[in-house]
Amino acid sequence: MPDRKILLEESDIPKQWYNIVPDLPHPLPPFIDAATGQPGVGIVPRIFPKEIIGQEISQERWINIPDEVREVYRIWRPTPLFRALGLEKALKTPAKIYYKYEGTSPAGSHKPNTAVPQAFYNMKEGTTRLSTETGAGQWGSALAFAAGVFDLKATVYMVRASFDQKPYRKMMMNAFGAECIASPSNKTEAGRKILAEDPDNKGSLGIAISEAVEDALVNEKETNYAIGSVFNHVCLHQTVEGLEAKKQLEMVDDYPDVVYGCIGGGSSYSGIMWPFYYDQVTKKAPKETKFVATEATACPKVTKGVYQYDHGDTAKITPLVPMHTLGHDFIPAPIHAGGLRYHGISPIISLLTQEKKMTTEAFNQLEVFDAAKLFIQTEGIIPAPEPSHAIKGAIDEALRCKKTGEAKTILFVLCGHGFFDMAAYDEYFSGKLQPYEYPTEKVAESMDKLHKLYPWLNEVNKKYISCETY
Amino acid sequence: MPDRKILLEESDIPKQWYNIVPDLPHPLPPFIDAATGQPGVGIVPRIFPKEIIGQEISQERWINIPDEVREVYRIWRPTPLFRALGLEKALKTPAKIYYKYEGTSPAGSHKPNTAVPQAFYNMKEGTTRLSTETGAGQWGSALAFAAGVFDLKATVYMVRASFDQKPYRKMMMNAFGAECIASPSNKTEAGRKILAEDPDNKGSLGIAISEAVEDALVNEKETNYAIGSVFNHVCLHQTVEGLEAKKQLEMVDDYPDVVYGCIGGGSSYSGIMWPFYYDQVTKKAPKETKFVATEATACPKVTKGVYQYDHGDTAKITPLVPMHTLGHDFIPAPIHAGGLRYHGISPIISLLTQEKKMTTEAFNQLEVFDAAKLFIQTEGIIPAPEPSHAIKGAIDEALRCKKTGEAKTILFVLCGHGFFDMAAYDEYFSGKLQPYEYPTEKVAESMDKLHKLYPWLNEVNKKYISCETY
Repeated sequence: MPDRKILLEESDIPKQWYNIVPDLPHPLPPFIDAATGQPGVGIVPRIFPKEIIGQEISQERWINIPDEVREVYRIWRPTPLFRALGLEKALKTPAKIYYKYEGTSPAGSHKPNTAVPQAFYNMKEGTTRLSTETGAGQWGSALAFAAGVFDLKATVYMVRASFDQKPYRKMMMNAFGAECIASPSNKTEAGRKILAEDPDNKGSLGIAISEAVEDALVNEKETNYAIGSVFNHVCLHQTVEGLEAKKQLEMVDDYPDVVYGCIGGGSSYSGIMWPFYYDQVTKKAPKETKFVATEATACPKVTKGVYQYDHGDTAKITPLVPMHTLGHDFIPAPIHAGGLRYHGISPIISLLTQEKKMTTEAFNQLEVFDAAKLFIQTEGIIPAPEPSHAIKGAIDEALRCKKTGEAKTILFVLCGHGFFDMAAYDEYFSGKLQPYEYPTEKVAESMDKLHKLYPWLNEVNKKYISCETY
Repeated sequence: MPDRKILLEESDIPKQWYNIVPDLPHPLPPFIDAATGQPGVGIVPRIFPKEIIGQEISQERWINIPDEVREVYRIWRPTPLFRALGLEKALKTPAKIYYKYEGTSPAGSHKPNTAVPQAFYNMKEGTTRLSTETGAGQWGSALAFAAGVFDLKATVYMVRASFDQKPYRKMMMNAFGAECIASPSNKTEAGRKILAEDPDNKGSLGIAISEAVEDALVNEKETNYAIGSVFNHVCLHQTVEGLEAKKQLEMVDDYPDVVYGCIGGGSSYSGIMWPFYYDQVTKKAPKETKFVATEATACPKVTKGVYQYDHGDTAKITPLVPMHTLGHDFIPAPIHAGGLRYHGISPIISLLTQEKKMTTEAFNQLEVFDAAKLFIQTEGIIPAPEPSHAIKGAIDEALRCKKTGEAKTILFVLCGHGFFDMAAYDEYFSGKLQPYEYPTEKVAESMDKLHKLYPWLNEVNKKYISCETY
């Protein structure tokens, strides 16, 4: 009988992150300044430390992990790789299923993998306070933890819908020493404007980003902004997931045929995927690996959204980013996977999708919780709703294998536990969950608005993304 | 720099539990039948499977762990042993601090260590349903998980105070497939009687035990009762903790000078302590080890209670048990360490205390949360309030070492995480926590009542516990 858990030693924690950028099929399109329609990074240099900006645009394949960061990683890394023996047995599949479990971190998810280096670089460059946004609260509590480690203050703007649904997340941020504010708030101009129009606004990641960025700009002297996903440097830091998982699979002489994960901004999936993509590009892989992301039908940025330039936030403070988007004015349905409710996605995920290096599948939350239930009762871990999308994808793949008889190796990243999501499980078990599908017409409406706002957008799309997308 | 985590392989999961009973300084006093005042186990044989009763009275030092149980243990065992490098650094202590972390289990605590074998033996002997009580919800969710694994139904009576404070625990039990009812309930005669006198009764473990035992007796044909602590067989199953910890300390060539833990019913502490006690008794220990339990000043059964015979439950259904007790009518203050709010304790803990093989220290919840806060910010793990008592004990010991310059090795068991206790942390951080000290007069009152109820009690105490205790 194989082991359920494949464990590494602390000395196995990677010494370098893997940067996919130089290995992409073609260069990443630039950010566009909305004021000019020309390439430009706008406020970006004002809100991040220099080291982070360097990583954001780096063309180096391997970037050293500072010793101080590896020292903090040791609190919970390396994380375990599980062989899902219970799930395989229940599915009666010939496939082998593995999952990289990131829920053992202080914040209960993969997010501290990037929160720690971000806090470290900020501390090193003299920042004393960080501002950020959070959806489900995973990122906010990770940054709260990391800020505490390096003696920085932290303010977290939390999407109102999640703030109300998950009160314990706020308390966790407080326990790590950070401040947590429901967004939209009256602390920022962006927030006040939205509340004036709609005092009951439930918020969105786009709005919370606007608030956090404004906070960093207004308090520029001592405050920087930290971001939990989407950006290259964030995805880069997450590659410890895939680098460890590869080593762990080597220990049992295995290699994935397919790699699943869920995408909100795309960082946890990039973390597991990039190192295996590297093997493909450099011809080091023993076989061809398929990369499949999963998203929510309530927020189908890749499967229903449009690949083009759009703002990363609702208040249009950020530059225009080349990505799949549902429109920066997107207001998500209150699904429980708060971390998947972002209107856009990492530009790298978008480029890889366009170049057919990966695909995305969308699931509604009812089928996702069905998958989570089976997982709980066979594997004994309560997953967060976000990675339950990946579980659903992996289960479907394992069931396809059952039909075809293929003994595929399936790997997915279980990016966080669901101990703070029990209210969601309660709704599911009491039959109250809505499936939610985002209507295609709504996407069209948002795109119309966007193109009215920036009449030159099609031209810019054509020039930099190399396709007229809308 | 030493590793933070000391890990074992799945093949290192113990193959036998260690039974302390044959190594006790003298035999355990018998249970007493309250109806006759004579030795007798009353309802015990009617509510447990034969294998469990055999273990309860076994004189064998080593008891085999069934393969089916080890197979389920593999889901989360062996658990990690942590070297508390962050805490040591913050305390500037010459002491080395280790903790055995049981929070990685499906239920988030040590409780599945016994829930799994109990469910297994019941399944094997044809039971189809289990009933039990739970305080903070740790035991209830562990039994819910274990019952699910072996396809048994489960009903959990949860102390009303905790049921209201920790709604997510109920949802977790539901997720594992069990039913959870607030106690006192109107499902049992014991519950109805209490509600008739006091409709707002907040419950106690004593009351919940009465309800769960009554449920098993009324539905005797298919239902058995499962207990989460106090009994010998429960403590026995927990020895996987200490057996693993010993092996882990061997790996870093260390051995504890002192072993801390917290005591509710005493099982998690027995689990870590017994295997090291075995070394003392058999002269295999490289040094003398001190054993120190910790309890809540709001429920000081060992430090303020009386060692004598008392019922294990409020409704006096159980036989009289030789233990330290605050009286079976004890109603605890609503401290957040729900798992420590039991009026009695394992008879083995009591015997070891009387024989001066171990001591107990009591802490109030304010000082306990101060300790937990330091632990969170230095170790990155949010502990449950119960083991935070052990953290407090370990910190005090480490600070004593700082004064004396002794480089002691301190080991404690961190028996569960606090992800379901964030409301408690919120109260602490907002300054609302009460320290609570149980008044000595109240103990005297309860003892008076008990001796009026059973005028022969002193005689029985003298005869079997070998001391006139009250």
